[in-house]
Amino acid sequence: MTPSNDVFFDFVCPYAWRGVELAQVLRQAGEQTFTLRHFSLVQGNHPDNAGQSEPVWWLTDQPAESGERFQQSSLLAFLAAGAAAKQGEEQSWDFTLALFRAVHAEKKPLDEDAVMAAARAAKLDLEQFSADRQDDEGLRASLRQDLAEAAGIGVFGTPTFVLPGGEAAYYRFENLTRELDTARQWWKLYGEVLHSGAGIATVKRAKNRPAKKAAHKELAQQTA
Amino acid sequence: MTPSNDVFFDFVCPYAWRGVELAQVLRQAGEQTFTLRHFSLVQGNHPDNAGQSEPVWWLTDQPAESGERFQQSSLLAFLAAGAAAKQGEEQSWDFTLALFRAVHAEKKPLDEDAVMAAARAAKLDLEQFSADRQDDEGLRASLRQDLAEAAGIGVFGTPTFVLPGGEAAYYRFENLTRELDTARQWWKLYGEVLHSGAGIATVKRAKNRPAKKAAHKELAQQTA
Repeated sequence: MTPSNDVFFDFVCPYAWRGVELAQVLRQAGEQTFTLRHFSLVQGNHPDNAGQSEPVWWLTDQPAESGERFQQSSLLAFLAAGAAAKQGEEQSWDFTLALFRAVHAEKKPLDEDAVMAAARAAKLDLEQFSADRQDDEGLRASLRQDLAEAAGIGVFGTPTFVLPGGEAAYYRFENLTRELDTARQWWKLYGEVLHSGAGIATVKRAKNRPAKKAAHKELAQQTA
Repeated sequence: MTPSNDVFFDFVCPYAWRGVELAQVLRQAGEQTFTLRHFSLVQGNHPDNAGQSEPVWWLTDQPAESGERFQQSSLLAFLAAGAAAKQGEEQSWDFTLALFRAVHAEKKPLDEDAVMAAARAAKLDLEQFSADRQDDEGLRASLRQDLAEAAGIGVFGTPTFVLPGGEAAYYRFENLTRELDTARQWWKLYGEVLHSGAGIATVKRAKNRPAKKAAHKELAQQTA
């Protein structure tokens, strides 16, 4: 078994969706292994956490119905994904991607209806899923582990991929692929940036980047 | 003549220094052409410009002695570099790199002494240099053109390289090279990221990135 990469994601983020799709292509081809990990953008960007060496505001400390829309929906999705993962690794990936696609390809709200539709799409045992979701305390403890590890690494956006050697970076790309050759190229390029002798810290397009506008258009066509 | 790349830089930025060194290696080998362009980090980060579609606060509108240290020293350096450039392209590069090295390799203050030392290192005609520096209005108008173009592109950090096709990105790396093979690889990787079908917007290491710490150490050894 090859050492696993981690992919940190938040269900509210369309870039994270494309990152997890990329990972799925590579793992289904048996070329890479990836572990799904949760990172909360609401927690990462929370004003109470600004300038702190570790978070003081945790998503896992918040009641389910508190906070604004992204806070509520991301907590709901993370806990549901934790319950789905109890049914096995393939079920975990299928649930995660079904939920991502509902929200970012089909533009549905990230809510209880979307969670249940993803559970059915992933062919979960729905009775078991419902029972596992009752363990709010256990699911929050598990989510907390991911959030704490992400904070330790300094994750700030999603998707962030962590390589077996510990290199970790936010990898934001505009386009979606489900083709192996393409996925392989995009993943290889990511590794080359992180392993370059230049010690690359950041490559980030200028804000009025014409290439990005073109890519957005292409994405809209691909996912139409 | 191959179409020219632009490199936007600010003298106060150590990453910009390494970027201009990289460009110099490639242009001296005749593999790429680069045009030196000025971008002001003080202007780019000025609170009055936050959220504005175009800058309202311009470095070129400020008296020489106003503002904090970076503001004063960057304006001084930009205007002096504009005067140096009047003596020719090689003189412009030699002056720019001599000033960068004084500040970021030798850790000298970016001030009038450093400017004059760079003028001597670049073998400028010092009388002419002094005369050209008197044209404050003309030098500011020329600087303003660079700053306005950078704002139009959405430059936010330095170095930002603009390729002949218009792709533009901040390229931050920790290490210094003056070797052609290495420079060629680092430049090729930058182009691959910008031209990838993924539509890469950002690759940015996580904040507590262990790879960066290692790179910093290596840099310190190289420039020691």
